[in-house]
Amino acid sequence: MGPGKAELLEHIASTGSISQAAKLMEMSYNRAWLHVKVMNENFREPLVNSSRGGTEGGGASLTETGRLVLELYRQMELEAATATAKTEKKLTGLFKR
Amino acid sequence: MGPGKAELLEHIASTGSISQAAKLMEMSYNRAWLHVKVMNENFREPLVNSSRGGTEGGGASLTETGRLVLELYRQMELEAATATAKTEKKLTGLFKR
Repeated sequence: MGPGKAELLEHIASTGSISQAAKLMEMSYNRAWLHVKVMNENFREPLVNSSRGGTEGGGASLTETGRLVLELYRQMELEAATATAKTEKKLTGLFKR
Repeated sequence: MGPGKAELLEHIASTGSISQAAKLMEMSYNRAWLHVKVMNENFREPLVNSSRGGTEGGGASLTETGRLVLELYRQMELEAATATAKTEKKLTGLFKR
């Protein structure tokens, strides 16, 4: 997992579509689909359910595991940001204004 | 700052040479030099002192600010890893074995 995959999951959840999610990230459908494939294969259970085709195109949604993974990832980001805030301030204080 | 620049600073400190540091990272000298230039320009004070040429090639070392920046960066990494450890364990527990 990384920031790109987390964002992809988030957009799939909100749009209900891998291709819409890809568009929002200015990513090709193939690349987005590959990310989904890798995530689905690497976790014990798939993170994304998707169905192909039909006249309206396929739909996609997060599985329960997908929602949990996204939640845990966002929690880690928050924990990291909180824990590093003081030191980051010292570091950015050394930047040119 | 990011992991690559931090590693570059570390190797410059240990080898005393931008080109040696670049080699250790399998990075071109030009790329390493550009990273150094960007860091030196973005901080209030340069992070790396370097001298060119001579028969033995130039030397490079971290300035006091450079050592401080590297230290703060490593501290942030440690703080982040510590703060996220529990949640990361939950997340990796969902990976396939």
